[in-house]
Amino acid sequence: MKNYIKYHPWQIIEEEFHHDFHLISESIFSLGNGRMGTRGNFEEDYSGETLRGSYFAGVYYPDLTRVGWWKNGYPEYFAKVLNGVNWIGVRILIDEVPLDIAITPVTNFQRVLDMENGLLLRSFEISPPSGGELIFQFERFCSMADPDAGVIHIRVKSEGFFGKVTLEPFLDFDVHNKDANYGDQFWISRDEYQDKYISMVSSVTKKTGFTVSSLMRTNLYKNEVLTDIATSAHESMKTSHLYSLDVKSGDELVLNKFVINLSSLYVPAEEQLDAGKKKVETLYNNGYHALKTAHITAWKKIWDGADVRIKGDISAQQGIRFNIFQLWQTYTGEDDRLNIGPKGFTGEKYGGSTYWDTEAYCVPFYLSSSEAKVARNLLVYRYLHLPKAIKNAAKLGFKDGAALYPMVTINGEECHNEWEITFEEIHRNGAIIYAIYDYVRYTGDMHYMVEGGLEVIIGVARFWAQRVNYSEAKKAWVMLGVTGPNEYENNVNNNWYTNYLARWCILYATEQISWVKEQYPTQWDKIKSTVHFDEAELTHWDDVAKNMFFPKDDARQLFLQQDGFLDKELMHADQLPAAERPINQKWSWDRILRSCFIKQADVLQGMYFFEDHFDLDTLRRHFDFYEPMTVHESSLSPCVHAILASRLGKMDKAYEMYLRTARLDLDDYNNDTEDGLHITSMAGSWMSVVRGFAGMTVKDGMLILAPVLPPTWTGLQFNIRFRERVLLVDITAKGCEVTRKSGDPLFILVHKEGRQV
Amino acid sequence: MKNYIKYHPWQIIEEEFHHDFHLISESIFSLGNGRMGTRGNFEEDYSGETLRGSYFAGVYYPDLTRVGWWKNGYPEYFAKVLNGVNWIGVRILIDEVPLDIAITPVTNFQRVLDMENGLLLRSFEISPPSGGELIFQFERFCSMADPDAGVIHIRVKSEGFFGKVTLEPFLDFDVHNKDANYGDQFWISRDEYQDKYISMVSSVTKKTGFTVSSLMRTNLYKNEVLTDIATSAHESMKTSHLYSLDVKSGDELVLNKFVINLSSLYVPAEEQLDAGKKKVETLYNNGYHALKTAHITAWKKIWDGADVRIKGDISAQQGIRFNIFQLWQTYTGEDDRLNIGPKGFTGEKYGGSTYWDTEAYCVPFYLSSSEAKVARNLLVYRYLHLPKAIKNAAKLGFKDGAALYPMVTINGEECHNEWEITFEEIHRNGAIIYAIYDYVRYTGDMHYMVEGGLEVIIGVARFWAQRVNYSEAKKAWVMLGVTGPNEYENNVNNNWYTNYLARWCILYATEQISWVKEQYPTQWDKIKSTVHFDEAELTHWDDVAKNMFFPKDDARQLFLQQDGFLDKELMHADQLPAAERPINQKWSWDRILRSCFIKQADVLQGMYFFEDHFDLDTLRRHFDFYEPMTVHESSLSPCVHAILASRLGKMDKAYEMYLRTARLDLDDYNNDTEDGLHITSMAGSWMSVVRGFAGMTVKDGMLILAPVLPPTWTGLQFNIRFRERVLLVDITAKGCEVTRKSGDPLFILVHKEGRQV
Repeated sequence: MKNYIKYHPWQIIEEEFHHDFHLISESIFSLGNGRMGTRGNFEEDYSGETLRGSYFAGVYYPDLTRVGWWKNGYPEYFAKVLNGVNWIGVRILIDEVPLDIAITPVTNFQRVLDMENGLLLRSFEISPPSGGELIFQFERFCSMADPDAGVIHIRVKSEGFFGKVTLEPFLDFDVHNKDANYGDQFWISRDEYQDKYISMVSSVTKKTGFTVSSLMRTNLYKNEVLTDIATSAHESMKTSHLYSLDVKSGDELVLNKFVINLSSLYVPAEEQLDAGKKKVETLYNNGYHALKTAHITAWKKIWDGADVRIKGDISAQQGIRFNIFQLWQTYTGEDDRLNIGPKGFTGEKYGGSTYWDTEAYCVPFYLSSSEAKVARNLLVYRYLHLPKAIKNAAKLGFKDGAALYPMVTINGEECHNEWEITFEEIHRNGAIIYAIYDYVRYTGDMHYMVEGGLEVIIGVARFWAQRVNYSEAKKAWVMLGVTGPNEYENNVNNNWYTNYLARWCILYATEQISWVKEQYPTQWDKIKSTVHFDEAELTHWDDVAKNMFFPKDDARQLFLQQDGFLDKELMHADQLPAAERPINQKWSWDRILRSCFIKQADVLQGMYFFEDHFDLDTLRRHFDFYEPMTVHESSLSPCVHAILASRLGKMDKAYEMYLRTARLDLDDYNNDTEDGLHITSMAGSWMSVVRGFAGMTVKDGMLILAPVLPPTWTGLQFNIRFRERVLLVDITAKGCEVTRKSGDPLFILVHKEGRQV
Repeated sequence: MKNYIKYHPWQIIEEEFHHDFHLISESIFSLGNGRMGTRGNFEEDYSGETLRGSYFAGVYYPDLTRVGWWKNGYPEYFAKVLNGVNWIGVRILIDEVPLDIAITPVTNFQRVLDMENGLLLRSFEISPPSGGELIFQFERFCSMADPDAGVIHIRVKSEGFFGKVTLEPFLDFDVHNKDANYGDQFWISRDEYQDKYISMVSSVTKKTGFTVSSLMRTNLYKNEVLTDIATSAHESMKTSHLYSLDVKSGDELVLNKFVINLSSLYVPAEEQLDAGKKKVETLYNNGYHALKTAHITAWKKIWDGADVRIKGDISAQQGIRFNIFQLWQTYTGEDDRLNIGPKGFTGEKYGGSTYWDTEAYCVPFYLSSSEAKVARNLLVYRYLHLPKAIKNAAKLGFKDGAALYPMVTINGEECHNEWEITFEEIHRNGAIIYAIYDYVRYTGDMHYMVEGGLEVIIGVARFWAQRVNYSEAKKAWVMLGVTGPNEYENNVNNNWYTNYLARWCILYATEQISWVKEQYPTQWDKIKSTVHFDEAELTHWDDVAKNMFFPKDDARQLFLQQDGFLDKELMHADQLPAAERPINQKWSWDRILRSCFIKQADVLQGMYFFEDHFDLDTLRRHFDFYEPMTVHESSLSPCVHAILASRLGKMDKAYEMYLRTARLDLDDYNNDTEDGLHITSMAGSWMSVVRGFAGMTVKDGMLILAPVLPPTWTGLQFNIRFRERVLLVDITAKGCEVTRKSGDPLFILVHKEGRQV
């Protein structure tokens, strides 16, 4: 753990420049607006270790799958989010020497992520060799008001310095992915443009043919007087404006760089130059301050719906706001072609692709903190991929419209290649149905069933009904060769979580078919014909649901994670020497597999999903059995344990788990923040608070709260959206107040007591 | 199956040139002498599809491991046998146009592998555009009399052709491995030499620093008159002699190319030039015919000990001789640093490394068909790697001298990286002990125990004793997370074969310790101190051996392949549609894993190893249960089933399995002969005949035969070596005659009847 970030309720603050942590800071200080994002790189040259990264939503490249030994069924490619144009660059020279704070000593360095206003601020002072001082201030934002716009504002003030200062804002498309197999370049220059004021670079991706154009207009004021561009330079894939000025003590330079980045997901390639010129012109004419105001206003609207206020614990407060802030920077829910990669726009690991994290973690967050359409778009994303999921299942030998969603995807096609995960970690298929259930339960939008929901549900139910086989030995349906959420077990039989989820999917499908048949007979006929549904399927489904096998231990009254779990040597994680942790870095894979240690919630994930199916005693037995064996080496694990611990009144454990998720990146718990932030598990932090400490859930259409706060917290306030209302929940030691801020009156339960709000 | 090879008892014959099968032919027509080997490439240019390959025993390169997702414990490199100097090359030009039979039409083409004499022969005729005909004859061999020598003899005769014929014998070290990750070159030029008569190229491998030098001297006779070299050319890594002659009808040219290839395994790099010059000079002075005679004599000696004669079935006869021939070309047993790669010198697949094939298949072959020292060297190879096996086990978390031999190795270090195999296919460790048992049982060389054997046995027994864990649920020692010989199951619990072998190793270790302690007390003290043996270990071993868990089905009276095997949907392989076979090409990996289909003998492998532990009824029950589910998609599988079927009197099945192993490459059963021959499974063909049809085994030091012939065979004769004797076994419908050809009288059992021979 690194404790160099200062505590502050609304800000992330680095004081003094931490060279050694710069890669981590670049992740933490990332900016984004759902359509694009940039790591917290410096505008000017930096010769120290850095991962320069700018990413554009949905722009990916299908890189060659790298594999030692090919297994039949592996995908041909691994999709990766592409590092795109470096649009933030501003080269700075002092007396012709480049400013590079990897070398140049700086004083009064401060870097601030102002989460309230969505701004990245940086300031420092240098003492040039020729004497005096230069004071630098940087402001940058990716506009939440205009998702194509990025703006940079730099002030340079001389105190006693006499000499030349050169500022060269540029756009550079000659960029590479850090994770390219062999240092390949994935972009080809497509078009370039430069006139007196505006410069553009435009490139197209190999294979996928996405075009991104970046245009800039800049201005520079010296002591509030506009100056001219000295030179406009242009070379292949790079364009710049050069301002070179003689500066004396007391002078102040102000540079504004207005950038429009257009992606062919939104503007056709051939229209980007014209559209971009118009847009960048508008930015320029509005000016820095107006743009900033519009951006801050947009953020205010988000915070109104999504803020969580924790009293008495500034570190927890900072953590949760950082998580909410980064989630909104990654995904704003306006485009059903987009989803949420585990690293968002903050790094390249995991290829920027979609995992089951979205359904299990992010959907609940967006359900409560924004309008229903945002979560709905995440469901529609999967609906649009249904044909590919059916094709994917067919590739593995399934038939008749059975659908298997990919483990990792960007466009609906599988792009992961570890057989034990790609082919066997099939519980993801259930999470996709669970998200539909969660959405409908929360929003009451039953109509989604006939607008895609049911087709997805049927495809997945079919998959489960084919994936099981009847065991003559057990006289039951079994599911062989799977990997559960606990990836520290591979190719196991009858993973309880997977079997339970599969049976639930089948039952839910049966129930929803029956409901749609009754409520929407016409649409049902249409769906039935679309998916070639045969009523006889229900008979088999019924048999599977009734006779599904679940491994258990009668003596302990426990469901077992999988067949044979009790053959393991059972130990508690705290019996492991510190030098052997994390086990995924210290132990060989086989040793991990045959140990009892659990990477992340597995049986407990099921008990979290289906909270109503198990009473508290059952939950406690399972928590007490599995929690001590859980090493939480997945970022997705602690939040589920935090929620269950809250429910069981184990507040110390809940709080420990909460901090581990909420400050995972700020404190670099896992030594991997430099690769990018753990965006999807950030939704888990929010869940720990709202679904955990506040005990929020929905049952039979009714909102329920059952708050218990960690001992150090004197208060917890948050807004949630629920069925066209905004509610303010205010929890203190004295009790829980719920105030309706908009929408119709509502009947809710707080600690099992009914209330009209 | 491709039936282009003509049947012949001693020869492999291709008549008419089969362009499409040339890659296959290049594998089949490979030559080798245990120290070097070359695919059946043409001497002259060939622009069609070809894999030019010359390989040198023990010369490898540690290439970067290619992996999608790194697992802790993976090795850093994957060793690969290196394609080395192309020493066979002879460029041929007719009127300045290169001869290239991919383009030039040829008539009377014939390619013959003369297995009796170890020669590769080729002849054809062409009709040059300027008229007339040229008749070509090629002879080539890798000398069995001098393992550094390779010789080529080419005759060109003109019938009606008048024009220019150019012959340019060359040595070319600018070669690449087909399986290089990114087309890398692994050799660096080290030295070059050329004088009036002798040329040399010499290169050193990157990283491993092996040097190979290739020297040639050539001569050319025109109508029996020696001519001069026209030009000697030399460029980096390539050297040549050029003969250019005017030819008229009736003229005959004879080119001899004498090559010495020296590897730094045998001659230090700095001595190779001088030593090579002397050796190549000697070859030259001896001349082609004398060298050929010495080579043929050496082969005759091998055949005297190793030939198998089958009467009434020429295809079976050709198959078994081809197998024996290729085995001897690959390994002659003189160097304990060498071993037998699955492809020998015939291709690059599997990296030329050593697998458990050696112990389970090749050791029995060499035990019977050569002197004891050959098999002993294969054991010593592993003994020399014991420190690395202990290190390998430590890497995976084992301690106190436990040894885990690598799955794939060239120098004792693991170089395979599929976790389910590398870390979990640990039964190989048992095969290494079984080979010691097999060797001692066959040769009676008990002294090997104190010369390395026991140390290896103790290391492996320790591994097993640590690898199990006590299951409270089963009240027995279990072995979790393994892959058995059937690689169509991964990460299973309690693979019966592995558990059985492990227990046997522990019991054998206990027994051998006790024996050595008594017979060689002084050496025991030394071994005890070397391996830090603690008598208390025996207590734990005893407990494990007594309380090892074995999965079984009481109703069927069967041992089960692993826990949960009966949860599978049980089917027979013949219920699979032809279009879905082989399943490893048609099914996705997960589907294969959860099916009941068995890649290769698993439980049955154990019953083959421990034939005395199971009565015939038990064997029959298991054979009848497992055989129909076995798809034999490993080349190592059919021979074990052939042997067991023979024992059970199922002669049709035995014969079917025999053909599948003996003619695997000649008939290209698996469509993969072009990658190289299946060298190690060739030993299985021999086992099918001698241990299967002839029912040979050894018990309590006594040789036992129990022959049963396939219906079509009218006779079977073979020589075996047994404890310093050579015996001729002659089996006909009338009975079995055993004649002692050398050594002392011997008492043997034939069909349970004692005989003095």
